[in-house]
Amino acid sequence: MNTTSEKAIALHEKLKGKIEITAKIPVQSMEDLALVYTPGVGAVSHEIAENPERVNDLTWKKNVVAIVSDGSAVLGLGNIGPLAALPVMEGKSVIFKQFAGIDAIPIVLNTQDTEEIIKTVLAISPTFGAIQLEDISAPRCFEIEERLADALNMPVFHDDQHGTAIVVMAGLMNALKVVGKNLNEIKIAMVGAGAAGTAIANILIHAGAKNVLVCDRIGIIAKSRDNLNAPKKKLAEITNKNNIEGTLADAVRGADVIIGTSGPGLIHTEMISSMNSDAIVFALANPTPEIMPDDAKSAGARVVATGRSDFPNQVNNALCYPGLFRGMLDNNIIHVTPEIKIRAATAIANMIQTPTAENIIPNMFTEGLHEAVAKSITSK
Amino acid sequence: MNTTSEKAIALHEKLKGKIEITAKIPVQSMEDLALVYTPGVGAVSHEIAENPERVNDLTWKKNVVAIVSDGSAVLGLGNIGPLAALPVMEGKSVIFKQFAGIDAIPIVLNTQDTEEIIKTVLAISPTFGAIQLEDISAPRCFEIEERLADALNMPVFHDDQHGTAIVVMAGLMNALKVVGKNLNEIKIAMVGAGAAGTAIANILIHAGAKNVLVCDRIGIIAKSRDNLNAPKKKLAEITNKNNIEGTLADAVRGADVIIGTSGPGLIHTEMISSMNSDAIVFALANPTPEIMPDDAKSAGARVVATGRSDFPNQVNNALCYPGLFRGMLDNNIIHVTPEIKIRAATAIANMIQTPTAENIIPNMFTEGLHEAVAKSITSK
Repeated sequence: MNTTSEKAIALHEKLKGKIEITAKIPVQSMEDLALVYTPGVGAVSHEIAENPERVNDLTWKKNVVAIVSDGSAVLGLGNIGPLAALPVMEGKSVIFKQFAGIDAIPIVLNTQDTEEIIKTVLAISPTFGAIQLEDISAPRCFEIEERLADALNMPVFHDDQHGTAIVVMAGLMNALKVVGKNLNEIKIAMVGAGAAGTAIANILIHAGAKNVLVCDRIGIIAKSRDNLNAPKKKLAEITNKNNIEGTLADAVRGADVIIGTSGPGLIHTEMISSMNSDAIVFALANPTPEIMPDDAKSAGARVVATGRSDFPNQVNNALCYPGLFRGMLDNNIIHVTPEIKIRAATAIANMIQTPTAENIIPNMFTEGLHEAVAKSITSK
Repeated sequence: MNTTSEKAIALHEKLKGKIEITAKIPVQSMEDLALVYTPGVGAVSHEIAENPERVNDLTWKKNVVAIVSDGSAVLGLGNIGPLAALPVMEGKSVIFKQFAGIDAIPIVLNTQDTEEIIKTVLAISPTFGAIQLEDISAPRCFEIEERLADALNMPVFHDDQHGTAIVVMAGLMNALKVVGKNLNEIKIAMVGAGAAGTAIANILIHAGAKNVLVCDRIGIIAKSRDNLNAPKKKLAEITNKNNIEGTLADAVRGADVIIGTSGPGLIHTEMISSMNSDAIVFALANPTPEIMPDDAKSAGARVVATGRSDFPNQVNNALCYPGLFRGMLDNNIIHVTPEIKIRAATAIANMIQTPTAENIIPNMFTEGLHEAVAKSITSK
């Protein structure tokens, strides 16, 4: 039993579930039972029926996040379905509890239909204080998140989009400090226009980036293309102001930053060599990056980040979501606005006092990280 | 702070939720994280994708019960909605864990539409090992349970029906020992033809009762009536073989047993006096029974049971469901058959060695109760 995979399977077999429900109060007598359950609980229910707001004082609802997945885009494994998604959702739940004290319930769905997913989440929503969407593939994830956020009176957050975007933004803030460049003056090329890529483009522009080109499998996303779905049309509106057409290689030439959320091998060393000096490379495909860090460095990259824990500068959504939800729930904030996302990114970036090429992103155990993210939600 | 109600509200305010999620394993290092979450969890997901049965070995699914309610029939409080139902569902979850080691998740719905409830439960079903329906009003509860049980490859159990029926059956078995009568020779009158009343009539007949009359607000349910909905038509088929018409008072006259699942005050002392000798009275309306135990006894009843913990012989669903689900889950049994229900009732009854008029039903803390119920599921 040497590999991480073998160890992980053995651990999961032993645990039969990484999480469990526990009672906060033992029931040891009929008197206890009469308070926790009937008849005493009748008064609690009656009080909430009279004043629904009281549910937040008298039940766990306010601290409960549903982690909802249809299993359509799980890690790098793709559309492996709801059962196979469950161990990932349990892992997220462990992280939610340990790092932010949040009770997160995996909810995996046996439908991948947009309308059915929306209806299902609306139907079960009174159970929860917030909704984390997880591992739902693009482009369905955009509509599902948008419509649920509009319909529900609670935070709705698709982690694969915004969790990734916030941590990338944090890493980029520090990478730019290392190379001494400004976000509003640089050229950014991106490869991958799925959930994460789209959200990253959005946060970059909200943060002040002026020159962003996003590529999909076909090439640079431009208004002039006639093969764009609705989310990519929106991307074409906010990026690529000069309607540049071309390939990924064209997009990368002269860029200061390249951000990949695509697949293994899609960024070549020649592309890196064609970039501006002090190039910044975020190669986030997992488990195999678009280009391996050593290759990127040999080709001239100054700062490299990946999604992996075995290289420096890991972009890990889990740096963000525990604190973000803690802050949203504690402050009764319903909408995760672009400003909140940028504040969270700034809080993550600021955990590193003096960024270096090998150290632009904190890790899960950086002291005070999750508290700082939670606090940032309401900072000015 | 003297009353149970005041104490219950104070306790709920203090706890802000009676249950919580806890991790079975702490995450204290990047190495831990790599096993619980990415990259290690990828191998676990992959394994389940290849062989879906493995989800039962590698996640908590097999030990997780959804407690689903639409808040339409909560305790004696009626249709108070999903938020007000939540504290009751949390109480059930505490009991599930403490008495049977089961992880039960409250799921409260913001729809009371039969089709939407069915679709929602089907959509979230991959998350769970079994479904407990709870506090869903009749007649919708019958169709919802039946269709979900048919569609899902897991136990589906509406506690207000069968939990009550099983415990009533257990109590009646012992009450009949006290008075020395046989189930297949006695006359049973019932008042209340909702979820509980219908399920009680069914289990009585499966257990061998030959003479059962059920009354609703209008009177005795009989095939000749033209105002019966579908569930009551079914009741008219299996009870009242001689198509007797009349009032509740007519039904009770000469009966050996009366079982109320209706409302306060519906059973009068004159009715009790009109019963056969050694009358057995189950007055289960909660919190105020159809007739108070002292009044029933003064009028000639020999054995009296209620739903209350402050009188002898409490009919409490929670005597049944923890052990029943434990036994179903542990033995991979999907359908809660009438035979399983009667076996569970027998197991509960048998917890009392020598039944007396004041002691026909065990309580939650009776040693070995829940284990005996769990074991009964597969007994011959």
